[in-house]
Amino acid sequence: MEAATLTFSDLVASGLAAVEARMREATPAENPELDAALDQLLGSRGKRLRPTLVLLSAGLLGADQARTVDLAAAIELLHTATLVHDDLIDGSLLRRGHPTLNARWEGGATVLIGDYLFSRAAELAAATQSLRCMESFAGTLTTIVQGELNQLLGSNSTDLRTAYFERVYAKTGSLFELAAEAPAQIAGTRPATQRKLRDFGRNLGIAFQIVDDVLDFAGQAEEVGKPVASDLRNGLITLPTLCHIEANPSDAEEVDLLLRGELSDQAQGRLITAIRNSGGVAAARAEAEGYVGTCLALLGELPSDRPEHQALGDLAGYVLQRTQ
Amino acid sequence: MEAATLTFSDLVASGLAAVEARMREATPAENPELDAALDQLLGSRGKRLRPTLVLLSAGLLGADQARTVDLAAAIELLHTATLVHDDLIDGSLLRRGHPTLNARWEGGATVLIGDYLFSRAAELAAATQSLRCMESFAGTLTTIVQGELNQLLGSNSTDLRTAYFERVYAKTGSLFELAAEAPAQIAGTRPATQRKLRDFGRNLGIAFQIVDDVLDFAGQAEEVGKPVASDLRNGLITLPTLCHIEANPSDAEEVDLLLRGELSDQAQGRLITAIRNSGGVAAARAEAEGYVGTCLALLGELPSDRPEHQALGDLAGYVLQRTQ
Repeated sequence: MEAATLTFSDLVASGLAAVEARMREATPAENPELDAALDQLLGSRGKRLRPTLVLLSAGLLGADQARTVDLAAAIELLHTATLVHDDLIDGSLLRRGHPTLNARWEGGATVLIGDYLFSRAAELAAATQSLRCMESFAGTLTTIVQGELNQLLGSNSTDLRTAYFERVYAKTGSLFELAAEAPAQIAGTRPATQRKLRDFGRNLGIAFQIVDDVLDFAGQAEEVGKPVASDLRNGLITLPTLCHIEANPSDAEEVDLLLRGELSDQAQGRLITAIRNSGGVAAARAEAEGYVGTCLALLGELPSDRPEHQALGDLAGYVLQRTQ
Repeated sequence: MEAATLTFSDLVASGLAAVEARMREATPAENPELDAALDQLLGSRGKRLRPTLVLLSAGLLGADQARTVDLAAAIELLHTATLVHDDLIDGSLLRRGHPTLNARWEGGATVLIGDYLFSRAAELAAATQSLRCMESFAGTLTTIVQGELNQLLGSNSTDLRTAYFERVYAKTGSLFELAAEAPAQIAGTRPATQRKLRDFGRNLGIAFQIVDDVLDFAGQAEEVGKPVASDLRNGLITLPTLCHIEANPSDAEEVDLLLRGELSDQAQGRLITAIRNSGGVAAARAEAEGYVGTCLALLGELPSDRPEHQALGDLAGYVLQRTQ
């Protein structure tokens, strides 16, 4: 089988080019400043994993190509919009190794550019001409925003592990879930298949986010594009830290101090080294592997007559292998 | 005819109560702080003119009641979301005489609460189960945000009058347009009637915004809920000022200085008094009357067999009469 030897990125290359073009076409700018901001945001070429997942899921089911491209562009613009507001709220100055909008622009413009991307994403979602897809799109936006509010204002979950996985689902799992399921809504696939794709997407998104959090500890600053352990330095507890204190309860107190902003910089450095060198990072990676294992099991129950089946498995493997 | 003696507010009272309940039900809060913010935002009871227009337009056409309530709640939540971000960008500390969210909250939370209202509004719009209505909803959000971006970054229109009416359409005309037209999309009314309602809404919204701008000059601070001539003080040129300098070209230079931030406070006070006392305010009000006249002419071409026909005319009259 020739198709089976294609990597997933070869299989979606022409589709992704159409998605890139659609994103830029759907965001015409009346102001030169807005145009420059959109160039920066849409030209920074992230990994485009969400559009890739949309294209592969749609290909697996034979969904209409034009509506699939609209959907993939909608999801990537929605993702970009949430990053713009997220960076503004965090005060982050770097994203993917490049200055963020709010590093260059005043806050008001950054708020509005995020809003502009939300509205253009909603227009593209409406262009799919699927009510179910529109409903899922709006519901996913609510999940993401509610997750960010919980992160800022505090969630009801006092247990750190529960709070972590709620946040990971809201931040990443929910949009991957949408990316995998919405093509099935467009194609009008039967509900059982829709649910399996939804579960595949959610598990893949959670694995992706865990690996992101692992790379924040294990990666080199130059590769990740931000300082090492930046989450911890910002008082955000991720899975490597959770695994570390579960295995080393004596360090839990230091994490408590960190959460209260009372840990000295020197002690913070010691804690980061301990997490990097202990089994915390490896244990977190093992949990990500578990989520990818669930993806592969679900894939075994999905239609396997198209090359996208193999490519979805390759995509799941890639999520574990990536180093940035 | 008993119904004809009802005022428009009597006719929509029970519908508006359902809309209020729907708005609160559609915005459940997981955090006590979010809950308090939503109480403040949704409990401040603005005039609810947009939901009133939705209910009257739907009543005129016999649109489904439950979907109409979803639509009206979606439009008012969208309006509230834009106000939240708008106040944050302006740094406004008062709205309707009450402290704005950003007067009490940090910027990050205000951004996210606006986003939360956008997403809940989108979910309600999807609940109308009308693709056309969803498309209009998303397109209107784009118009509003693009208008705000033009205001912040500068628009292509160098002519002050053109720029003013573009801004008024984006800020207010477009959402009134949606409020009048979308019920016709839900009801599946024929296109000619949809267009007339759309035009009615747009003209009503423009009249409403002009009166708002007139009241900013002519009203008392206590009634309007913000300082007199706050727009001008913030460097924003509205119709009373435009009419004033069109009739008194010698004052155009002072307005130029104001726009460049080079007019002294004393000279600013003199200019405000001149606009209040000259024919500028009256001329602007006369233009608003012209837009309401267009509304009444359009109403004459719309179905007249229900009490909502009379009530839409009363609503147009109310827009001119209001003092706050």
